[in-house]
Amino acid sequence: MTPEEFRRHGKQVIDWIADYLSNIESFPVRAQVAPGDVRRALPVSPPECGSSFTEILADLDRTLLPGVTHWQHPRFFAYFPSNTSGAAILGDLLSSGLGVQGMLWATSPSCTELETVAVDWLAELLGLPRHFRTDATGGGVIQDSASSASLLATLAALSRATGGVTAHAGITGRHTLYVSSETHSSLEKAARIVGLGADNVRKVPVDPATLAMDATALDRMLATDLADGAIPVMVCATVGTTSTAAIDPVRAIGEVCREREVWLHVDAAYAGVAAVCPELRWVNDGVAEYADSYVTNPHKWLLTNFDCSVLWVADRAPLLDAMSIQPEYLRNRATSSGAVIDYRDWQIPLGRRFRALKLWAVMRWYGADGLRDHIRTGAALATEFATWVARDPDFELHEPQVLSLVCLRPRWPELSTGEANDATTRLMESLNASGALYLTHTKVDGRVLLRMAIGSPTTEERHLREAWLRIREEHRKTLADLALERAT
Amino acid sequence: MTPEEFRRHGKQVIDWIADYLSNIESFPVRAQVAPGDVRRALPVSPPECGSSFTEILADLDRTLLPGVTHWQHPRFFAYFPSNTSGAAILGDLLSSGLGVQGMLWATSPSCTELETVAVDWLAELLGLPRHFRTDATGGGVIQDSASSASLLATLAALSRATGGVTAHAGITGRHTLYVSSETHSSLEKAARIVGLGADNVRKVPVDPATLAMDATALDRMLATDLADGAIPVMVCATVGTTSTAAIDPVRAIGEVCREREVWLHVDAAYAGVAAVCPELRWVNDGVAEYADSYVTNPHKWLLTNFDCSVLWVADRAPLLDAMSIQPEYLRNRATSSGAVIDYRDWQIPLGRRFRALKLWAVMRWYGADGLRDHIRTGAALATEFATWVARDPDFELHEPQVLSLVCLRPRWPELSTGEANDATTRLMESLNASGALYLTHTKVDGRVLLRMAIGSPTTEERHLREAWLRIREEHRKTLADLALERAT
Repeated sequence: MTPEEFRRHGKQVIDWIADYLSNIESFPVRAQVAPGDVRRALPVSPPECGSSFTEILADLDRTLLPGVTHWQHPRFFAYFPSNTSGAAILGDLLSSGLGVQGMLWATSPSCTELETVAVDWLAELLGLPRHFRTDATGGGVIQDSASSASLLATLAALSRATGGVTAHAGITGRHTLYVSSETHSSLEKAARIVGLGADNVRKVPVDPATLAMDATALDRMLATDLADGAIPVMVCATVGTTSTAAIDPVRAIGEVCREREVWLHVDAAYAGVAAVCPELRWVNDGVAEYADSYVTNPHKWLLTNFDCSVLWVADRAPLLDAMSIQPEYLRNRATSSGAVIDYRDWQIPLGRRFRALKLWAVMRWYGADGLRDHIRTGAALATEFATWVARDPDFELHEPQVLSLVCLRPRWPELSTGEANDATTRLMESLNASGALYLTHTKVDGRVLLRMAIGSPTTEERHLREAWLRIREEHRKTLADLALERAT
Repeated sequence: MTPEEFRRHGKQVIDWIADYLSNIESFPVRAQVAPGDVRRALPVSPPECGSSFTEILADLDRTLLPGVTHWQHPRFFAYFPSNTSGAAILGDLLSSGLGVQGMLWATSPSCTELETVAVDWLAELLGLPRHFRTDATGGGVIQDSASSASLLATLAALSRATGGVTAHAGITGRHTLYVSSETHSSLEKAARIVGLGADNVRKVPVDPATLAMDATALDRMLATDLADGAIPVMVCATVGTTSTAAIDPVRAIGEVCREREVWLHVDAAYAGVAAVCPELRWVNDGVAEYADSYVTNPHKWLLTNFDCSVLWVADRAPLLDAMSIQPEYLRNRATSSGAVIDYRDWQIPLGRRFRALKLWAVMRWYGADGLRDHIRTGAALATEFATWVARDPDFELHEPQVLSLVCLRPRWPELSTGEANDATTRLMESLNASGALYLTHTKVDGRVLLRMAIGSPTTEERHLREAWLRIREEHRKTLADLALERAT
C-alpha cells in the first residue's frame, strides 16, 4: 500500500470508526451470535489475490460486526470498564504508523524516554511515592496487562528472596505466595508459570464483611510456613478486587511484610487510577510506605485503550537481576554505558510497541483536570445507581459499594440459596441476551451477585436509568415465570 | 474527544503518517540524540489542562521525532526487518477503534473466531501440517512476540513432561532444556522464568561451518542427562537464527526428540514466513512430522506491524493443562459448553487486543500472491547484495547466506582478530552515526560480522547500492585512519 493509498483508505477507516462510535447505541451490547457463526461466514482458505480496502471494510460490516460485543457501548457494564478514547486511539495509530520497536534505548530513544516520562507523570498524577520514579531507585514500565505485571513482580520477589539463586539454579525449595480468596486468578497463574505451583499459593482468610485480607491471619500463616521451612516470596494485596472492588488493608499487610521481610506487591489494576482525584487517594494508603511493586491499568478506567498496564517497582535491581540477559547481537554502546534504560529487561517479551504514545496523548489531551473529571463522573454515577438499588425493596445492595462498581442481588422470596442463584443467573442471561445491556456476575459467600461496572466515558445517567428499568422489569418477569413454572 | 473531533483529528493523524512515510528517506535512519536528550526536552510534570491535538502533533514533530530511529526506512538493515504496511496499520486502527477485549469467546466472538480463521489461513499459506489447525488436535494463537510463544511452549512441554504435576506442585526436580549456542536468548529467559534456571539450559554444539545444531551431539547429551536423573523438557530447534539465519536440522533433531520423548519446539520467528513461497518451503522441512510447537512472526518479514507472532501447537491439551484457571467472575455459558476457544488460556496475560484484524487485513489486501512477491523481492535483493560482497576482495561473505540476511566481514590486512573486531565495530559505528544506514553486528567464531537484514517493503535495489557504496567508502576511510594512527 503506497503512502497515497494509505492516506485515502486511512480516511475511510477514520470515518468508519467515527460513524461506529456515533452509532454505537444502535447495536445490541452483547454479540447475538452462536459459537461458530462468524467462522462459518468466513472463507475456509486464504485469498489467492488481494482485495480493495472497501471490500475489506464491507466484510467487517457484514461478517465481523455481528459477532462483536461492544465494549465501548454506554450500556456495557460487564467485567470492568475498558476505556478507550479518541486521544488514545490516535496515539496508538501514531505508534503503528511509526512502526518502531523499542526493545533497547538504542533502537528508538524516544520510545524509551517518552515511556519513562509518561510513567513518571502518571506516578505524580496518582500521588505515588518518589522512589517509584525512574530517577530514584525504582521505575515504571508499561506492560500489556496486570497479569504480566504481577508475573514480573513475582519474578523480582523470587530473585530477592533467594539472593538471585533461582535465575541460575531454578526453583529448588518450597517457595510460597500469599493471596486472599478474593485475589485475581492471575496471581495463581503467575505462581504456576514461575514454577512455585498452585499448591504453594496460600489463601489468607478475608474479613467476611469487607472481603479484605486479614493481616493478622497473614502474619500467623507466614509464621507457620517459615517454621515449616518454606521461603515466603511475595504477598499480593489488592486495591479493588475483581469480584466486588474490595480493598485490602495495604498498611497493615505492609507492616507484616516488613517485619517478615517479604515482598509486597499491590494489585490496583482497576482502582488505582482513582487516585488522580485527591479525595480518592485513600485507595493507595500504605503504598508509599510499604509496596515493593504496584500495578494499575490506564486501560481499564483511565481512557487509554488496551493494552496499557503500568508496573512500578520501589527498587529496580531485583527485577533487572531476574530478567536481564545480554546476547552479542543486542550489545550496543548505549547499553554498555549504563546511561540508558533498556525496557526489554523489564518485561517478558523482547520486542515492544511504542505504547507510551497513547498514554502520553491521553495525559496531554485531557490534562490532569480532565482525567479527574472522568473519574469523578464514573464514581458519582455509581453512587447514584447504588442509591436506587438500596432504596428498592426487591434488591439488596452489596456494601461497601466501592468507586464505580455496584454489586447487587435481586431478592427471591421463598427460594433457597441455590434456587435464588439460579434465578439471578437466569435474570442476567435474559438481560444480556436482550442486547439492551451487558453485565456479569460474581459469587460472595455462596450467593450470586450481579456486577454493574460503571465508568465508561460514554455512559450518562440516562443509560443507567434505562438499565435499572430493564433490570427491575426482568426481575418481575422472572418472578412471574418462576411462579408459573412452580404452579404447572 | 467526541466522534466528530475524532473524525477531524483522525484525518490529521492519517495525513501526518502518510507524509511521514512519503518523506521517510529524508530522516537519518538512526536517531542522532544522546541519552537523556528527549527526556530533558519534555516537561517534568504532567499538564494540568488539556491541549489541542494540533499541539500534540507539533510536540511529536519537535520533541519526539528527532529521537526516533526509523525502522520503516528503506536503509534500515539492523536486527531483522520489522515490516509494517498500510493494510496492517489500518487493521490495527480498526482494532483500537472497536476497543474490544477478547479474553473469552463470550467477550467478543469475532475477536476469537477471526483469530482462529486467520491463523488457520496462515498455516495453509505456509504449508504447515493439518494437525496445527484448530479444527484438528492443535491450534494457533497470536502472541506479542516469539519470546512469549517460546515461554508458552516451555510451559506446555513442562506440563507434558511431568504429567501435569508442575502446575500444582511446582518445579521439584532437575528439568533440562536444550538449545544451541546460536539459539535466541529468549529460550534462556524462558528457562529462568519457568523456574528451570539458566544452569539447566544445555547448549548443544553446532556444526562449525553451518552453525546448525548437531543432532548426534544432542542425542548424546540427552542420554547423559537422563542417566543422571534429569527430566529433559524441551529441545528448541531454530529455523533462521538471529545471528546468521542458520537453520537447525529439524528432521534429524525431531527423530532424536521422538526417540527420547522430548518436546520439540521450532523457533522460526524470522525465517518461517518465507514458506509462503513453495520454493522456500524447505525451511520447514521436518516440522510437519516432528514439531510439537512452532512459532513464526508476521511482524518481522510478513508486512504485519508489531505485535503479531503466531504460535502453533500440534496438541493443545498440554498447553491448556498448563495455563487454564477458571475463577467465578469469568464463568460463562459458552465456556462451560466446551464449544468455544477462550484464548486467555493460550497466553500469559488475561486480556487481549483484537490483533487478528491486522493479520487478516494483510492477507486480504495482499492475497497469497502479494505475500509471495514480497518475500521473493526481499530474498532476491539479498542474493544480489551477497553477490556484490562475494566479488569484492576487501570483504568476506559469510556463507551459507540465508534468505534476506547477508552477513559480511570487512578484511583488515595485518590486523589481529581482536584489532580487526575493533576496526569492524568502529566502521559500523561510523556508518550508523552518519544516519545514512543502520546495521548491526554479530560474532561468529570470535570474529565480528556485520549483518545486513534486508526485507523491508520499501527497500529497493538503489538503496542497497547506496548502502554498499557507503560501506566500502567507510572501510577505505577506516583503513586509512588506522594506518595514520599507527604511523603517529
